[in-house]
Amino acid sequence: MAPLPLRLHPDRLLPADPAVRAIARRLYESVKDLPILSPHGHVPPAWIALDTPFADPVSLLLSPDHYINRLLFASGVPLDSLGVPPATSHLDEAAARAAWASFCSRWGLYRGTPMKYWMEEVLADVFGVTVRPSAETADAIYDQIAAELATPAYRPRALMDRFAIEFMATTDDPCDDLNYHEALAADPTFHHRVAPTFRPDRYLEPARAGWAELVDTLGETAGVDTGTYAGWVAAMENRRAYFKAHGAVSSDHAHRDAGTEPLTLPDAERAYAAARAGRASAEQCKALQQTMLFEQARMASEDGLTMTLHPGVYRDHHTATFNTYGPDVGCDIPMAVEYTRALHPVLDAFGTNPNFTLVLFTIDETLYSRELAPLAGFYPAVYVGVPWWFIDTPDAIMRFKRAVTEMAGFSRLSGFIDDTRAFLSIPARHDMSRRLDAAHLAGLVAEHRLEEDEAVAVAHDLVAVNPRRVFHV
Amino acid sequence: MAPLPLRLHPDRLLPADPAVRAIARRLYESVKDLPILSPHGHVPPAWIALDTPFADPVSLLLSPDHYINRLLFASGVPLDSLGVPPATSHLDEAAARAAWASFCSRWGLYRGTPMKYWMEEVLADVFGVTVRPSAETADAIYDQIAAELATPAYRPRALMDRFAIEFMATTDDPCDDLNYHEALAADPTFHHRVAPTFRPDRYLEPARAGWAELVDTLGETAGVDTGTYAGWVAAMENRRAYFKAHGAVSSDHAHRDAGTEPLTLPDAERAYAAARAGRASAEQCKALQQTMLFEQARMASEDGLTMTLHPGVYRDHHTATFNTYGPDVGCDIPMAVEYTRALHPVLDAFGTNPNFTLVLFTIDETLYSRELAPLAGFYPAVYVGVPWWFIDTPDAIMRFKRAVTEMAGFSRLSGFIDDTRAFLSIPARHDMSRRLDAAHLAGLVAEHRLEEDEAVAVAHDLVAVNPRRVFHV
Amino acid sequence: MAPLPLRLHPDRLLPADPAVRAIARRLYESVKDLPILSPHGHVPPAWIALDTPFADPVSLLLSPDHYINRLLFASGVPLDSLGVPPATSHLDEAAARAAWASFCSRWGLYRGTPMKYWMEEVLADVFGVTVRPSAETADAIYDQIAAELATPAYRPRALMDRFAIEFMATTDDPCDDLNYHEALAADPTFHHRVAPTFRPDRYLEPARAGWAELVDTLGETAGVDTGTYAGWVAAMENRRAYFKAHGAVSSDHAHRDAGTEPLTLPDAERAYAAARAGRASAEQCKALQQTMLFEQARMASEDGLTMTLHPGVYRDHHTATFNTYGPDVGCDIPMAVEYTRALHPVLDAFGTNPNFTLVLFTIDETLYSRELAPLAGFYPAVYVGVPWWFIDTPDAIMRFKRAVTEMAGFSRLSGFIDDTRAFLSIPARHDMSRRLDAAHLAGLVAEHRLEEDEAVAVAHDLVAVNPRRVFHV
Repeated sequence: MAPLPLRLHPDRLLPADPAVRAIARRLYESVKDLPILSPHGHVPPAWIALDTPFADPVSLLLSPDHYINRLLFASGVPLDSLGVPPATSHLDEAAARAAWASFCSRWGLYRGTPMKYWMEEVLADVFGVTVRPSAETADAIYDQIAAELATPAYRPRALMDRFAIEFMATTDDPCDDLNYHEALAADPTFHHRVAPTFRPDRYLEPARAGWAELVDTLGETAGVDTGTYAGWVAAMENRRAYFKAHGAVSSDHAHRDAGTEPLTLPDAERAYAAARAGRASAEQCKALQQTMLFEQARMASEDGLTMTLHPGVYRDHHTATFNTYGPDVGCDIPMAVEYTRALHPVLDAFGTNPNFTLVLFTIDETLYSRELAPLAGFYPAVYVGVPWWFIDTPDAIMRFKRAVTEMAGFSRLSGFIDDTRAFLSIPARHDMSRRLDAAHLAGLVAEHRLEEDEAVAVAHDLVAVNPRRVFHV
Repeated sequence: MAPLPLRLHPDRLLPADPAVRAIARRLYESVKDLPILSPHGHVPPAWIALDTPFADPVSLLLSPDHYINRLLFASGVPLDSLGVPPATSHLDEAAARAAWASFCSRWGLYRGTPMKYWMEEVLADVFGVTVRPSAETADAIYDQIAAELATPAYRPRALMDRFAIEFMATTDDPCDDLNYHEALAADPTFHHRVAPTFRPDRYLEPARAGWAELVDTLGETAGVDTGTYAGWVAAMENRRAYFKAHGAVSSDHAHRDAGTEPLTLPDAERAYAAARAGRASAEQCKALQQTMLFEQARMASEDGLTMTLHPGVYRDHHTATFNTYGPDVGCDIPMAVEYTRALHPVLDAFGTNPNFTLVLFTIDETLYSRELAPLAGFYPAVYVGVPWWFIDTPDAIMRFKRAVTEMAGFSRLSGFIDDTRAFLSIPARHDMSRRLDAAHLAGLVAEHRLEEDEAVAVAHDLVAVNPRRVFHV
Repeated sequence: MAPLPLRLHPDRLLPADPAVRAIARRLYESVKDLPILSPHGHVPPAWIALDTPFADPVSLLLSPDHYINRLLFASGVPLDSLGVPPATSHLDEAAARAAWASFCSRWGLYRGTPMKYWMEEVLADVFGVTVRPSAETADAIYDQIAAELATPAYRPRALMDRFAIEFMATTDDPCDDLNYHEALAADPTFHHRVAPTFRPDRYLEPARAGWAELVDTLGETAGVDTGTYAGWVAAMENRRAYFKAHGAVSSDHAHRDAGTEPLTLPDAERAYAAARAGRASAEQCKALQQTMLFEQARMASEDGLTMTLHPGVYRDHHTATFNTYGPDVGCDIPMAVEYTRALHPVLDAFGTNPNFTLVLFTIDETLYSRELAPLAGFYPAVYVGVPWWFIDTPDAIMRFKRAVTEMAGFSRLSGFIDDTRAFLSIPARHDMSRRLDAAHLAGLVAEHRLEEDEAVAVAHDLVAVNPRRVFHV
């Protein structure tokens, strides 16, 4: 039997009703070829700077993508068989082919998911694959991808050209020297902008193992004594300035909760000293963390780096998996989150400061209409970050649009954020977003809630205007 | 270039699918001209009693409407430039024209929002405006509205006739003498019913600044010594009776949470005495507030005033705005709310009392299917209030209908509540509700979940029967 | 006037759009006649074992169905007039006819609800009723049903044949001797499988009145001294083994919260001793309950019984109703629930144990995308239970599908669970689920997110594969 074809329908994700689809097609056409702005993501800058060829389909498409490999794991496939780092060793070709076959033969697991949607675009659009993944087609697809990866057209910089990525932000440790970003900025042959993002979470969590050493390192890197809280603040200011000088447009923050109630300075110093000495109580650690997050907002209101907040995740929920594979391996689980009370201190202090920009993300959908839209519809500093991670899926994105834009309009949205480490899926993710913008707006036009010229303007703003405004790109 | 036209499509908000829309049209036609019952709102009774002409477009349509002006504020327009009271002075004509131009030139901010939807109806239907608001059309629209406002047809009573508002409730302080309501009731030339609503929140919050003075005033107004908790109860009963005698059909309550666990009488007296003396702990204040709310329910079960509950809002979230402009200026932000445990004491005591009616509102959509529908589907006293404030928007209203009516049916709904201080938008809001009723019911008919004759009956009940039953109108 | 007809449209619940409906019809056709697997429900096994004829329409269709009678109660009909047990006496025919008339004349209360949908199928499909319930048609419908019930075709076993129920689980107390199940298994003339389900809630709640006597009984039944916590554990293991030997495939658990943090063994023994002596604190009782629930998970990982969890309900919310009618009478009200933190101990210990299966249910829809899909998309042990109880309604089920399957795919779903004590509605409930599967999948196909052959495969899996995998049937 001939293998089943892999087809990308030109109308995918557009509404089924013929009249609404016709409107949606026009809206989509008007934005589909605009360049990509990616203000928050996780592509390693070394890939771009060194322009290293990708090794093989598995280490490119499966091992690092926890969206993909967590569902294989749930269905019984061990993570090490998929080359999930830190695996004891890189998969040799036989093992990589076996991993690929394991994935292709379980292709049915992804029915209805965006992982299927994105992967189909990567396979069909990026690599020209024309058959559906299955046990039977696995080897042929592997061969086809591996052959393409060996060509210059599939090196990272060539793909950035092909994908039309105008701006891309990476995610970086405050102590990173940003040498790859520096190299890219200095390279006259490279015509995209790759900006670092200041991600200081670890340094703000005094209850975390090894925190005292981390702030020592911070102090050394900044050339500032971090023996006091005031020193910690000065070191942070120093590193934020370093990032800004290297092109950063934002800092990114992800703690369990979004609390920002600051201690007084003397109390902060006392808590900091106790934490440094390893004798701070859980309450002190929490209060100090909230103080430090408030302080980051204060710094943001001065240096103008946009502050993005991604709270509400129980990181590394499965201890055994964390112990073997480390963080970011697919066992982070969302939790309920609260913003209205948690952010009151920061918003009371900086919510109308014209130099402060705060983008609020959530994985807890209950916040869409209850807190996100109301906050962004009042505070000039606040923008609503589009659905992140687990909810970066078509129906959840539509729920988000329907719940947020009715109250806050479209001007208070961040624009699309891909937030991905799956480099090859970036065009598919942005294209999905543009299709869903078109689907949502077409519905409003079809129900006579918006004129079509207004919808065209909104579709353009969401792709080309909002991200530049929110991230000062 | 000719200005773009402002058009109200006759099928606006009806489903896009032609077959479903045809059903929806028939349902909508069957209810669209029924008179308006508005059992909860915020129109000042003085407007009606004195029949004062409205001054200008800005003080009528922008300054008092926090739905409108909060989004302008978020985009950088200062509230005082919009004449938000208490502004230092009323805007002169130049300033009013500038405010109007500021609004019209930012018309795009409202795309996709009900503020656009309502304002379009006010402009087109009430004032006959035919061009879309923009920087270019601002002055002409201002002139057109100002000219109309100077005519007798645009005085409040004439508009009440034109809008076919049969019943309208205002919101009033327990110490209000209700002289405007009295005047209206005594006026043989006035053929609408304008009822007061008992809104005692401030007197139930012992932690609030000035509470002791408030209960002094309450005591003086009622002619009852409020030096004891028993006195407070007697004074409340007295004022509720006064309101009822002046036509009130309900009391309205809005605290941060919905807790109703009562203290014993001796504990209540002790807490009350401590609160009067300014030495009650936060816990005592909270317990006393919950006791007082329980007491209001007890009174409602005796005097038969319907009790409406609107909890879960962090009032005056931005301190600086509150300090300048006072309450109700757009910086109230919703919070998560809980009913199942919070209302247990009240429902255990009065939930099956045939003289008690409790209408539960929420801005936290998570309660739709989790708590509201289950409570109203069991307790004879409980009705589900329709979406309020931030979620009084087309998609949120459809989510509400889909989540609540499946479990509780349509008989447990309050009917539409406009809850607005934007007098001119009242017809647009009720019309939106009738269109969405039709859209929802048409979907059920199209999916063969309801026969069309049943849908016609439901559409009629929601407009003409439920509000009368729930509010004893 | 002729009574209005009662009609079941063949396309009911399928999408209104003609093109999508055509796909949905094909999908529905492919599964509609598959046999019923019912892995969790509340039909009394005695009905099947004794094959007792049903007495009358009211005691069969109204008195035991709290979905139906709670909404009548809310509209003012006393529960005793509906024969809700424990009524003081069984309704005589006059009272039963009056109850039936009370229901039929209030048929409008159920518009838009699944109670209407299910009852219409029971009336039309099971009994051949052709007129719509109303005050006028009540007696004729009563007569028609009563006549049918007197025939052999309407005895429980004949209906099990007619309904094609291949497998059905009941819900049973750990001390039950399972004699009905034993009789059914031993009966060579009975060709369906009726399995017990181990439901030990009462024995895990030390704060409950009468708990000490319950664990005494447990010990006697198991032949194990339950004077210590170790004895309680041994007795539980004994009874689980007894259930397993009698065909059980699962244990079912429903506490207010899902906490599973275990005490150390010495602390558990101390708390157990205190609870036995009636001097345990509320905190100790709660900690002991959580320890016991953790212990059930540990046992499940050893004996392989699938563990189903249904937390988050405030049972018997209305005390007066509970005092008169006992539990399960319609006054249970959902509450917010949390899984990410609560289940961490169990999942850390057993989440990747190949012998452990945990099915998570919720009535709190906020968990769909926030916790359920993320947990089931990582832990091999975890499956998502489909909407339960209040949210077993068409729109809620569609929300569930749209929120869960995007992240976790379809392989992590339990398959449909009817969870009902309304025996005659079982086919209608499963049919509704298959129609909604078809509706959901057709939408994905119409939006080119899934090929139709993939949708056919999913529709089949959800009915015939997933329940067998999850419940080891």
